[in-house]
Amino acid sequence: MHTLVPVDLQTEPYTIRIEAGVLSELSRCLPSAAQAVVISDTQVADHYLALVCECLQENFERIDTITVPVGESSKSVEQAESVWNQLAELGTDRASVIIALGGGVVGDLAGFAAATFARGIQLIQIPTSLLAQVDSSVGGKVGINLPSAKNMVGAFWQPSHVVIDPSVLNTLDERNYVAGLAEVAKYGVIMDAAFLEMLENRVARIHSRDPEFLSEMIARCCQLKAQVVVEDERETTGRRAILNYGHTFGHAIEAVYGYGEYLHGEAISIGMQMAAELSAEIGMLKDDLSLRQSQLLQDLHLPVRLPDDRRLELLEAMKKDKKVNAGQLRLILPEQAGFVKQVIAPSEQTLLSCMEAFVNTD
Amino acid sequence: MHTLVPVDLQTEPYTIRIEAGVLSELSRCLPSAAQAVVISDTQVADHYLALVCECLQENFERIDTITVPVGESSKSVEQAESVWNQLAELGTDRASVIIALGGGVVGDLAGFAAATFARGIQLIQIPTSLLAQVDSSVGGKVGINLPSAKNMVGAFWQPSHVVIDPSVLNTLDERNYVAGLAEVAKYGVIMDAAFLEMLENRVARIHSRDPEFLSEMIARCCQLKAQVVVEDERETTGRRAILNYGHTFGHAIEAVYGYGEYLHGEAISIGMQMAAELSAEIGMLKDDLSLRQSQLLQDLHLPVRLPDDRRLELLEAMKKDKKVNAGQLRLILPEQAGFVKQVIAPSEQTLLSCMEAFVNTD
Repeated sequence: MHTLVPVDLQTEPYTIRIEAGVLSELSRCLPSAAQAVVISDTQVADHYLALVCECLQENFERIDTITVPVGESSKSVEQAESVWNQLAELGTDRASVIIALGGGVVGDLAGFAAATFARGIQLIQIPTSLLAQVDSSVGGKVGINLPSAKNMVGAFWQPSHVVIDPSVLNTLDERNYVAGLAEVAKYGVIMDAAFLEMLENRVARIHSRDPEFLSEMIARCCQLKAQVVVEDERETTGRRAILNYGHTFGHAIEAVYGYGEYLHGEAISIGMQMAAELSAEIGMLKDDLSLRQSQLLQDLHLPVRLPDDRRLELLEAMKKDKKVNAGQLRLILPEQAGFVKQVIAPSEQTLLSCMEAFVNTD
Repeated sequence: MHTLVPVDLQTEPYTIRIEAGVLSELSRCLPSAAQAVVISDTQVADHYLALVCECLQENFERIDTITVPVGESSKSVEQAESVWNQLAELGTDRASVIIALGGGVVGDLAGFAAATFARGIQLIQIPTSLLAQVDSSVGGKVGINLPSAKNMVGAFWQPSHVVIDPSVLNTLDERNYVAGLAEVAKYGVIMDAAFLEMLENRVARIHSRDPEFLSEMIARCCQLKAQVVVEDERETTGRRAILNYGHTFGHAIEAVYGYGEYLHGEAISIGMQMAAELSAEIGMLKDDLSLRQSQLLQDLHLPVRLPDDRRLELLEAMKKDKKVNAGQLRLILPEQAGFVKQVIAPSEQTLLSCMEAFVNTD
């Protein structure tokens, strides 16, 4: 049983393959080339690197590996430089293929290396975290962080293949699994009310990590994301912006509390709830989505509040966000379940007042 | 009097404007935006930064500047990181425009920053060296060096506008002016025998930097380059490779002797002569181009020999070149004046033996 999700980009269309157990059968899904460089982090490498290299013997004359430390701090200029230098030492050239084996951090860093090494080489994404499987491995956004802003340096660089094995989620720790569910819930909220309702009704199955259910859930997320990406590959028409729901708040939370204090998905969960409550506050939200979303996120064991009051810092961080366009901060806010809209942010006063409910002001 | 050279790329066509004195009249040639960040080096900044900022007051609500040290060493990861951080501090976003005001180093570094900051923002090239005017500002190649290999990290990122003022060459020092002439001569050798002959007959006018003549000469180079770039924007069909004539040898010379010891154009001059003599050696060259080219390069005051014997190091550096494809080193060699061809490099023995004429083996 496998699902193929086409990503019909005009220039270079590709397919996302979702199949439990596919990691042991990579050879038949991937192309051949002279050299593959598998980029991974130490934790994922422990679990899957040997298996992947073994399975790909037939496809590549030579397989090299680069392993980076676990965690968001690897999305740094320093780590990118280290990867570039290692690729140069390994004799990587334009006929080589980079395989990103790991979660969102590995995918973003390895993808950025692929986009920039020798002015761009082929990229294959094999995401191993739920977050990467439903979000970051699809759509071509790659990049690294600057100390002052997340994902501020990067590129649009589409993979040639995305191969997703939901059964690897069995080895994913609870916290990272749960964090990935924030992006899953996001798709329901922003563009698919039926999917949102399904998630609300299947919380137990979600937590049990039932492989069959997971495959369906991940495939639906990939379909929804592919649909948006095809309409707006390089974030120029505005359509793709809906995927940033919760992200302007979320990125600010990550920046202010330190990348790594909150996992990306956890910060996005709080950010989504901030967006929903702000939308209700300014009279834009027409239904009970804010309540439903808060319930779902908490049922999924995701945070929806912050431990202390750093609202002024959050506001400053938000102003540095890439979504600030010509000095104007824009936010994605929900109108009702399944529908969001990009709006110019309300006054700082309104933002601060809305965020008050989220912080501990003791 | 101005010349417009169209670069008819499928996705984003643009125009190169060549006009003496245009630097004082930039306002009418460039678009408007909220913010421009002019990236320059300290030397070019001394001459032209105030003028450019003054002239662009009307076009931009805000003009910021970033100045980097003079020289090839600025094409480093460290300097790119510094530029990224400064852009973040300046609040640069996707509605901003980066203006590269300077020679090849500034164009490549600023272009790489434009390609990667916020996943890509608009780039305007205002090249101020001959090398940049006839070569690096046109065609979209941007990037930085790794310690082990030149231009190894980069992207294809097309400018939205290229504005060339040949009169700024009056302030260019003799050595840099002469170095740029290597790329001028290259166009004649690789694709335009009539242009080559014209250069041979106009050495005195070239050295006098006659503005009218320079405008014509630069425009012809831009036309020739644009023609190749349009046929092969991302170096995939092989056509664009002809522009690398002399560059595999030249990049190795730069790497082995240290970036900065030789100017790019000087290294390319020696590299072109190596390519021509190798072609003669292996029986591929059908006419007296090798002799003519050697004469022209020397008439232009360019070097065609090396001071000592580092052939083994040069060979090692060549193997790391981006033009090594699937482990095979390729070279662009001339067949006759105006025609070159990409071939698989002959044996290391042949390369070493051919290079012997170029080195001082005392």
